[in-house]
Amino acid sequence: MDIQKIVIVSPMIKELKAYIEHYKLDQEIRYLTEDSLAEKDLDWADAFCGFQIKKNTNYSKVKWVHSLGAGVDGFLYDQDWDDNVLLTRTVCSFGQRIGEYCLSYLLRDTQAHQEFAKQQKKKSWNEIPPALLRGKKVVIYGTGEIGRKVAEMLSVFGMKVYGISLSGKHKPDFEQVMAIDAHFSVIKEADYVINTLPLTDKTADFFDKTFFEQARNIGFINVGRGRSVVDEALLEAIDKEHVRFAVLDVFRDEPLPEAHPFWEHPNIAITPHISAVTTAKEAVDCFVDTLKRLETGKSLENKVDVQKGY
Amino acid sequence: MDIQKIVIVSPMIKELKAYIEHYKLDQEIRYLTEDSLAEKDLDWADAFCGFQIKKNTNYSKVKWVHSLGAGVDGFLYDQDWDDNVLLTRTVCSFGQRIGEYCLSYLLRDTQAHQEFAKQQKKKSWNEIPPALLRGKKVVIYGTGEIGRKVAEMLSVFGMKVYGISLSGKHKPDFEQVMAIDAHFSVIKEADYVINTLPLTDKTADFFDKTFFEQARNIGFINVGRGRSVVDEALLEAIDKEHVRFAVLDVFRDEPLPEAHPFWEHPNIAITPHISAVTTAKEAVDCFVDTLKRLETGKSLENKVDVQKGY
Repeated sequence: MDIQKIVIVSPMIKELKAYIEHYKLDQEIRYLTEDSLAEKDLDWADAFCGFQIKKNTNYSKVKWVHSLGAGVDGFLYDQDWDDNVLLTRTVCSFGQRIGEYCLSYLLRDTQAHQEFAKQQKKKSWNEIPPALLRGKKVVIYGTGEIGRKVAEMLSVFGMKVYGISLSGKHKPDFEQVMAIDAHFSVIKEADYVINTLPLTDKTADFFDKTFFEQARNIGFINVGRGRSVVDEALLEAIDKEHVRFAVLDVFRDEPLPEAHPFWEHPNIAITPHISAVTTAKEAVDCFVDTLKRLETGKSLENKVDVQKGY
Repeated sequence: MDIQKIVIVSPMIKELKAYIEHYKLDQEIRYLTEDSLAEKDLDWADAFCGFQIKKNTNYSKVKWVHSLGAGVDGFLYDQDWDDNVLLTRTVCSFGQRIGEYCLSYLLRDTQAHQEFAKQQKKKSWNEIPPALLRGKKVVIYGTGEIGRKVAEMLSVFGMKVYGISLSGKHKPDFEQVMAIDAHFSVIKEADYVINTLPLTDKTADFFDKTFFEQARNIGFINVGRGRSVVDEALLEAIDKEHVRFAVLDVFRDEPLPEAHPFWEHPNIAITPHISAVTTAKEAVDCFVDTLKRLETGKSLENKVDVQKGY
């Protein structure tokens, strides 16, 4: 693919520019903030690179769109996409980042961090024996790039890792992969459930009352998308002890509105969408790698299947 | 070695007995609490098994002493030992347990658990990007069974793991192992320091003012022995930002006295000596394994070098 003119739109445009200049690319590049992007920039450009697209803007003018994030619902969800435009996304260290995020909260649980912190406040010496991760059952929704990396990391500790995907096709690092509509038996036995699914028509509102009612006192971690969880159903599930605790990095509305009951819930930990934060350097490395592969006609591992939505 | 009569002394004697009975051993066993142990029991026995020995009791009457814990300072520190008596100790899953303990607190730090918990209380959405473990430098004091397992676990995440031992002899899973008296250069660059050393004459009061002054804002984890740390020096080191936070599982006096300043220090996390808690089942499995090896003359991996003290 011949790419000569690129528009890059991002809130962290200064940092991106500094890293990109290291590469001394041949292309002409316009660095813009989201507000300053105009139709004429897309008329001019061969390629667009950013975190999302503006509604009602005609992106079919460019040949290639690259997402600076791992999720591409900001490009595809509830929007039409011209199949002639190539869509790629940032992959890089997301799997490792999300893996360490999830592992940190599983270990917070098994090592009883919160209980010991409470005891310390009371100067109480009560020997709660930590549990080993070995043998604990974890179900990971999504067996793509990120789900697999999380599975690999947790398997090292001897956890029993089950995967749930659309197809149910077997993948390495999982004890077993099940199709998304035939997985309830494994939820009944799970200690932890981790959602890494992208937001699509099939995954919106997926974690609902029916889902949570299958669970028996699980730890629930959402690093996928907020719109996949029905908030009221999660709150009810905690009340009814289907869910022991939840760790949420993503929400229906972000930042999470101040009035939302998640903020003050003692069994919910909230992080501000940082489990797979893109550092400017990583985003640039991945963008330049993709650009060079396009120029030399090499295969792409980060091409988005626009029909599937990820 | 011919062992026919065994005395087992422990506060969790009922559980130990239940597990031991599964093995249907040929030996005669007396199960006692520490208070009820008398000289006549040692006259009768070939072997003694417990967490520590009573002062002023003559253990040279038995051929074999087995420690139900990993540490043997309860047998050797400040006490004479008859070289004719074999001393063994419990090894089992201690390495894995201590590894998960340490990893949980490293991840608590890199994933900013405490900062996010504070933000949640204020309903504040501030995107602190978590750090990856990759490339962080950790120095582990002690390169034995436990130190090596911790090193192995942390290496998987791409951490740079340095070891400090008496000899400085190279061991797998460490980038480099240094002798204990020539290690200050690496402390200056460390992000984290983990102590797994046993208590001996050489390691008592080892982490003192001189040691901490080399450190630059480290996370310090003590899973070795409390008497290896000079408490006042640690407190001063936190004040002077040589130490950013400390996680302490072991103390000079246990339980930690209520008046001790560690309890209320915001940068110190206290756990009640649980990082390598012996479950009854594991202790029994290791004890029976050692017994069978002695009976059949097999080599022992858990024999204590009484001169070295571990």
